[in-house]
Amino acid sequence: MQPFDLVIRGGTVVTATDSMKADVGIRGETIAAIGLGLDKGKKEIDARGKLVLPGGVDAHGHIEQLSASGKMNADTFQSATTAAAHGGTTTVISFAAQHVGMSLKTVVEEYHELAERGAVIDYAFHMILADPRPEVLEKEVPPLVKAGHSSLKVFMTYDRLRVDDEQLLDVLQAARDNKAMVCVHAENHGMVSWMGKRLVKHGYVAPKFHGISHPRLCEPEAFHRLVACAALVDQPIMIFHVSTAEGAQVIRHYRGEGLKVFAETCPQYLFLTKEQLDKPGVEGRKWMFSPPARNASDQEALWQALSLGDLQLISSDHAPYAFNETGKLMGGTKATFKQVPNGMPGYEGRLPMVFNEMVSNGRFDASKFVEWTSTNPAKIYNLYPKKGTIAIGSDADIAIWDPKKSVTFTDKMVKDKSGYTPWKGRTVKGWPTTVLLRGEVLVADEKLHAKPGSGQFLPRKGGKAAEPFGRATQEFDPKRNFGAKLR
Amino acid sequence: MQPFDLVIRGGTVVTATDSMKADVGIRGETIAAIGLGLDKGKKEIDARGKLVLPGGVDAHGHIEQLSASGKMNADTFQSATTAAAHGGTTTVISFAAQHVGMSLKTVVEEYHELAERGAVIDYAFHMILADPRPEVLEKEVPPLVKAGHSSLKVFMTYDRLRVDDEQLLDVLQAARDNKAMVCVHAENHGMVSWMGKRLVKHGYVAPKFHGISHPRLCEPEAFHRLVACAALVDQPIMIFHVSTAEGAQVIRHYRGEGLKVFAETCPQYLFLTKEQLDKPGVEGRKWMFSPPARNASDQEALWQALSLGDLQLISSDHAPYAFNETGKLMGGTKATFKQVPNGMPGYEGRLPMVFNEMVSNGRFDASKFVEWTSTNPAKIYNLYPKKGTIAIGSDADIAIWDPKKSVTFTDKMVKDKSGYTPWKGRTVKGWPTTVLLRGEVLVADEKLHAKPGSGQFLPRKGGKAAEPFGRATQEFDPKRNFGAKLR
Amino acid sequence: MQPFDLVIRGGTVVTATDSMKADVGIRGETIAAIGLGLDKGKKEIDARGKLVLPGGVDAHGHIEQLSASGKMNADTFQSATTAAAHGGTTTVISFAAQHVGMSLKTVVEEYHELAERGAVIDYAFHMILADPRPEVLEKEVPPLVKAGHSSLKVFMTYDRLRVDDEQLLDVLQAARDNKAMVCVHAENHGMVSWMGKRLVKHGYVAPKFHGISHPRLCEPEAFHRLVACAALVDQPIMIFHVSTAEGAQVIRHYRGEGLKVFAETCPQYLFLTKEQLDKPGVEGRKWMFSPPARNASDQEALWQALSLGDLQLISSDHAPYAFNETGKLMGGTKATFKQVPNGMPGYEGRLPMVFNEMVSNGRFDASKFVEWTSTNPAKIYNLYPKKGTIAIGSDADIAIWDPKKSVTFTDKMVKDKSGYTPWKGRTVKGWPTTVLLRGEVLVADEKLHAKPGSGQFLPRKGGKAAEPFGRATQEFDPKRNFGAKLR
Amino acid sequence: MQPFDLVIRGGTVVTATDSMKADVGIRGETIAAIGLGLDKGKKEIDARGKLVLPGGVDAHGHIEQLSASGKMNADTFQSATTAAAHGGTTTVISFAAQHVGMSLKTVVEEYHELAERGAVIDYAFHMILADPRPEVLEKEVPPLVKAGHSSLKVFMTYDRLRVDDEQLLDVLQAARDNKAMVCVHAENHGMVSWMGKRLVKHGYVAPKFHGISHPRLCEPEAFHRLVACAALVDQPIMIFHVSTAEGAQVIRHYRGEGLKVFAETCPQYLFLTKEQLDKPGVEGRKWMFSPPARNASDQEALWQALSLGDLQLISSDHAPYAFNETGKLMGGTKATFKQVPNGMPGYEGRLPMVFNEMVSNGRFDASKFVEWTSTNPAKIYNLYPKKGTIAIGSDADIAIWDPKKSVTFTDKMVKDKSGYTPWKGRTVKGWPTTVLLRGEVLVADEKLHAKPGSGQFLPRKGGKAAEPFGRATQEFDPKRNFGAKLR
Repeated sequence: MQPFDLVIRGGTVVTATDSMKADVGIRGETIAAIGLGLDKGKKEIDARGKLVLPGGVDAHGHIEQLSASGKMNADTFQSATTAAAHGGTTTVISFAAQHVGMSLKTVVEEYHELAERGAVIDYAFHMILADPRPEVLEKEVPPLVKAGHSSLKVFMTYDRLRVDDEQLLDVLQAARDNKAMVCVHAENHGMVSWMGKRLVKHGYVAPKFHGISHPRLCEPEAFHRLVACAALVDQPIMIFHVSTAEGAQVIRHYRGEGLKVFAETCPQYLFLTKEQLDKPGVEGRKWMFSPPARNASDQEALWQALSLGDLQLISSDHAPYAFNETGKLMGGTKATFKQVPNGMPGYEGRLPMVFNEMVSNGRFDASKFVEWTSTNPAKIYNLYPKKGTIAIGSDADIAIWDPKKSVTFTDKMVKDKSGYTPWKGRTVKGWPTTVLLRGEVLVADEKLHAKPGSGQFLPRKGGKAAEPFGRATQEFDPKRNFGAKLR
Repeated sequence: MQPFDLVIRGGTVVTATDSMKADVGIRGETIAAIGLGLDKGKKEIDARGKLVLPGGVDAHGHIEQLSASGKMNADTFQSATTAAAHGGTTTVISFAAQHVGMSLKTVVEEYHELAERGAVIDYAFHMILADPRPEVLEKEVPPLVKAGHSSLKVFMTYDRLRVDDEQLLDVLQAARDNKAMVCVHAENHGMVSWMGKRLVKHGYVAPKFHGISHPRLCEPEAFHRLVACAALVDQPIMIFHVSTAEGAQVIRHYRGEGLKVFAETCPQYLFLTKEQLDKPGVEGRKWMFSPPARNASDQEALWQALSLGDLQLISSDHAPYAFNETGKLMGGTKATFKQVPNGMPGYEGRLPMVFNEMVSNGRFDASKFVEWTSTNPAKIYNLYPKKGTIAIGSDADIAIWDPKKSVTFTDKMVKDKSGYTPWKGRTVKGWPTTVLLRGEVLVADEKLHAKPGSGQFLPRKGGKAAEPFGRATQEFDPKRNFGAKLR
Repeated sequence: MQPFDLVIRGGTVVTATDSMKADVGIRGETIAAIGLGLDKGKKEIDARGKLVLPGGVDAHGHIEQLSASGKMNADTFQSATTAAAHGGTTTVISFAAQHVGMSLKTVVEEYHELAERGAVIDYAFHMILADPRPEVLEKEVPPLVKAGHSSLKVFMTYDRLRVDDEQLLDVLQAARDNKAMVCVHAENHGMVSWMGKRLVKHGYVAPKFHGISHPRLCEPEAFHRLVACAALVDQPIMIFHVSTAEGAQVIRHYRGEGLKVFAETCPQYLFLTKEQLDKPGVEGRKWMFSPPARNASDQEALWQALSLGDLQLISSDHAPYAFNETGKLMGGTKATFKQVPNGMPGYEGRLPMVFNEMVSNGRFDASKFVEWTSTNPAKIYNLYPKKGTIAIGSDADIAIWDPKKSVTFTDKMVKDKSGYTPWKGRTVKGWPTTVLLRGEVLVADEKLHAKPGSGQFLPRKGGKAAEPFGRATQEFDPKRNFGAKLR
Repeated sequence: MQPFDLVIRGGTVVTATDSMKADVGIRGETIAAIGLGLDKGKKEIDARGKLVLPGGVDAHGHIEQLSASGKMNADTFQSATTAAAHGGTTTVISFAAQHVGMSLKTVVEEYHELAERGAVIDYAFHMILADPRPEVLEKEVPPLVKAGHSSLKVFMTYDRLRVDDEQLLDVLQAARDNKAMVCVHAENHGMVSWMGKRLVKHGYVAPKFHGISHPRLCEPEAFHRLVACAALVDQPIMIFHVSTAEGAQVIRHYRGEGLKVFAETCPQYLFLTKEQLDKPGVEGRKWMFSPPARNASDQEALWQALSLGDLQLISSDHAPYAFNETGKLMGGTKATFKQVPNGMPGYEGRLPMVFNEMVSNGRFDASKFVEWTSTNPAKIYNLYPKKGTIAIGSDADIAIWDPKKSVTFTDKMVKDKSGYTPWKGRTVKGWPTTVLLRGEVLVADEKLHAKPGSGQFLPRKGGKAAEPFGRATQEFDPKRNFGAKLR
């Protein structure tokens, strides 16, 4: 047998199915063997008493991106991916965000450049379409999907980003034609806008009114509409950041009808409630994101939806803004909640927060943790089997978790450029003490061991990618599209 | 006992509850007695072997109105109400239709003028809001509702008429503030527009593609969205012309949750299918209306929804266009289906078509016929007890039906100005042979006995009007509105 | 015009549809005219300021009947119908209750005899089948249905009365063959029995454990099973005394699927909660009935189910036991809740309690009150149009309600033989001050004016009777029955 | 590194999550390594071009068991497990079947003896309770569960086996007290019995009437009832052999409410329809089992329910009867369908039939095949991680599938004692050519290489076993049981 470059010895290896005492042998960038008593490697890591998990895949985060309100968010690929790495995540899919009037091709090239310069973990892009004009959909989207950008994203709200129903249908049809997935921020724009205006008009401008300005109803409404449009075109969709019990219920309903609806939630909806916005002064702005956090009963409903398979993954929706005049304090402390950029840092805390609740608190087991935070996102977005699991031939992206290590979140430990952690003061049990990327140590001893730009772009195929889990769905069939059916 | 001006003798009097052999005694404009062996009146009508029913109330029709595509529809108040009278209808609620930029007050005044000049039956107006700008909602709507126009209508589709979600919320809130009902044409505009463009682009321009351009999904989608908006504001709504089983199901769902959702369907959805549009040449344009007729299974679903109380009334959506260059042939025979005005004549055929199926064919009984075509519309729109029943003190608006009279529809018999009947060639059993309006003979021997302008305007109160059937709904309470709840 | 024997002058006449100021003229036993300024009658009743309503029809009550636990209930036809009359009810359908081994024919004859001797209002019988052996179903049921007993009742619980699923199917099929309705006490027997035994075994024997021994789940479970059996045979059913929100939801579900499911609730489920059972000592036994009262949220759910048409009527389930050793104290104060006879008096309080909430408190209007307490039971059980309305030719069964009269319930005022009222101490507004049966004064000045035995038996046709409301159901078709379909 | 006893080289190893090119190294009875280029083993199996899958776990089969109608089924542990082994199955859970009056302890001992003598694969027992009298539940069940029999089974139908609702509750409570799973054959007994009697009475006795005698409604009805009982006791359940779309829908409904409902289906419901029973003469008896096969649309609904996670596994319900006078021809060819024993052989064909459809036909992928036929049954019944996966430390139970091998089923190839295969004439692609049990070759070259009795008993823990998938369910908490809650 060929020697191993690295052996992780004595840990408990966990996949989405299995949990086993075993060593992991790595050759070059990939996993070469899992077994008991593997031969000594050139290097060894002692994992006794530890869990050996696939590195996290975070399928939803904004890096070096203009926000809906026009503001560049806080971090760079370097800071953002460094934060992710420290939190046990080894792959992110961030956004290449078109704004109105822009060429999508140019946008993607620019994000490539930014990422190549700074990323310390591997990455891919969802292409945000804010201006799905015919030339973009017909000329730019096809070669970009072929180049590995097999997921599109649209917003149903935000003045400067949102698409209307007709544009949404155009995007869905383009995705279908090119075998790409469509991810959607789905809230009813009219309700959010109407509520916001009335609140501001009546002087209700404090952070807590942000939550009120996104009524619960705006989520199930948008889901109904989105699914109807997707069903018309017969195109799979991914619903981003589900926040309400009603929203989860709508998803369950349509999945039961056989529609190809996938969905994620985020730690902020599992661990925060709307009360978090109601802090003295402008402090609450730190937790201002959309959709807003809801109630404790929604948290339970979302856990249940995950356990039932109605939601399939937990992403972070990382979208950091510094707590200063270029970020959360833009417009000053007198600004209304409508003027504050939406979003909060998420890469670093996602996995520890979720691990603590699922594994340490015993709500679910470690396999489920792996499934929802690594394997499922990798499968749904066609990063699998390169990413998302510990299997022979897969990239040796591995997070070694110490299930007994307790960590209390502080602003000081923050690696991204927001300067604060939304989890400040919370103590979690379980932490990724060593993280490997493609066989190399990425994080150890609370330090980053990788150079900016060492992360690699991950081209993703379309087609089957959008049909995960071996679901009984047919291949995309151009014969079944609308025009053809009529003849 | 004071003498009767008129006695209808020997018939079977039917209300939404009862069916009884009895004479009806009329003094002046109202019903004074129902009984056996009433004293002889100054005039007598022999109703032996006949059904004595309240005159029909048709709560949905367009008269002398600009269409969505800008075209004046075919008839005048005189022709339209004459047609209605011959079909057994004695009250209509038609539209005062604002277009963008217009003053609502002026619009209402103009329709008043038109109606005063021509109407031969009594009438009221729903006010269509195509431009719900603040000055209209704040300055014009309140006095107009107080003046008796206690229902607003909005379109969720048609390029020149539709309101977006934010405008819809503004209208719903204004209705709530003024205790008015809101009627809605609810179809997803994006789907209809998107489908239409794709069809035309591919050369699918014949009338039958009109049906295809309104996918079934556009109805339940719009219902979900509309109800969500109404629920946000806690405002009752009336969903116009339900066409699909799925749409009816959505209504049932939300009614079951206690929401104040009312709905109607029309004869075209109970008796026609989409195949009707597929005639040689442009003939199909005669049955081009929106939403389009669907399938036989939808007809059954709509009857069931009526029987379950999910739908409460059957209106006509009378919207006639002549089959000539100023109407259905506008733009010539080469025009695409998108250029053809939508609508068909409905006032005259509504009651005979429905009576034939419900009463003559035995699907339901005569009381249900009265309930859905007269009593319920009168109650929901606050015309009751003046209109909609045969009760002491109510207007003597009475249609005497000969249950044995067979009539085959022909274009020649048409009283409105469309020049054709959509029911051509169909034979119905049961016909209103004598029709009274406020105690006077309106139609007899197939002739009109009233002068243009003899119809009266019916001011309608708001508030309770929107809460029919003694439903356990609270009074509209301004304290519960959005702003107040926050304090 | 022929003179009237009696004129009720100046009141507000209410039917299930209409409410109108009018006099009512009576000739002999029936209503001859409704009108303004009717000629003077031989007798006159001044109804100014009063509501003139059809006498109540109470479709569910036990009179002179053996209980499930073997005990004769408290009252006689004379006492029971006297109580009903004072509460504004002029028609009851009580039970002819077969026990195991009995001949149904004999049973019916015996109840006829009892009723003829004592009844002061009109009556009919549901035939309880506790022993549906072939000879009963094949030989006895057909002539009895033909003789006017067109409704059968079965119990799904109670050791000595209940039928199992196979017997239930036999009864449903017999009902179908004979065009009769089937009424059902539907609770899961196994759950009730199992819970009861465990409670008693652990020493939980106080009255309040009666409520706990009927878990909420036993109601929706039994409804699912019952409807499944009825659907198999295609037979309409009436579900008695719905007590839970979940039960009402199950009914709504199946009605939405087009199944012929009817249902009632009772005042005890609209105005009592389970806390009522938890009185010091054995006092709680007064409110011990099955199913037990539930929660305040169930009360709201039942009102909503009524308003949606999912439930169609409010009956009393009158089943009185004296609060002594032959009744509620049977077995002494040490007896467990399982030994106490189930039931409470209901005839007298039903209408005043419901009127107070619906009309005086404004929850619904007087027409809805008439519909649910008089017209619907008459229609569903084929007593209409003789009973259940104020219409020309109908029996002059009329209750004149003083909407301003306040009455506080006391044990002293009780007319039945239970000796107590479950509504003791409650003050209601609105009381039937004068009650007529077939044109004769039955109750006036708080006194009965009729002789024992003056009530008449009401034979009821089958067939259409079971298909009320003009529902779009087909005639019972023996060709569609099971055997025939197979050939 | 220690040498391997056996290496399976060059195949594609598949788990419920992963699919990877890798060798599998075995030491003794367990899997020691998975990797590329493993050192040579003492023995080697060439698996190039093959799929290396965990051996199948079949959680539902009858071996050497008395049938509901009293007849011993056809095979022995030797014949049955030999058939299973040839079909790629290495673990079965069969039944220890108590009949009325028997001691459960004795029954289990007897089945142990039979299995020890004959089994060639590993096995466990579900304990059938036909007589759950107190002494059985209180004295016998606790030690038996502790001894590793952590699942009980009850029948809701069959005259001699079924429990009534109260007994069902007793069993559910006993299971809860002892932390065991409860498996249920859930059909409404009354419907089946009633239909059967009517059919036979009318002379409808051919095999096809077996299907008609189990109306579709008997399945959802029983599911509703079963789940209600389980919910009352808060006990997880496994619903056996779901056959209808409606049944699957009921399960989905209750799972959505958070209830611990698990369910399986079988190949006969995925690949057969009721038409199969309608063969000339008595041939149809070969496919007579309960519930019967349904329609093609049910097959699709069941695949969808599997893909949605509503059903979690595919078992065989192996229950073979020879096609002779001691089996399917019992009572002769004149016997009615009620006299024919229910069941058909299933062990051998289960995996090839399912593999062919899922993997070869591309309906799902190989990981899903492993999940539903091996991993999920092992996890749900607490056989995991010893059985049900290919992981380090797990038993080396491995089936090597040749995905290109075509096999046409013939009666001749049958290994069990029924003498016929229900899949006769069907050609499948994909066959397990080599099967290992705990590291030893069990089947190769179409021959069995194991001795009778070499299979081992698998004791199974209770408790967590009943709460698979890391579901967010609490530990069984005796404090929450019924009695305790009352205090």
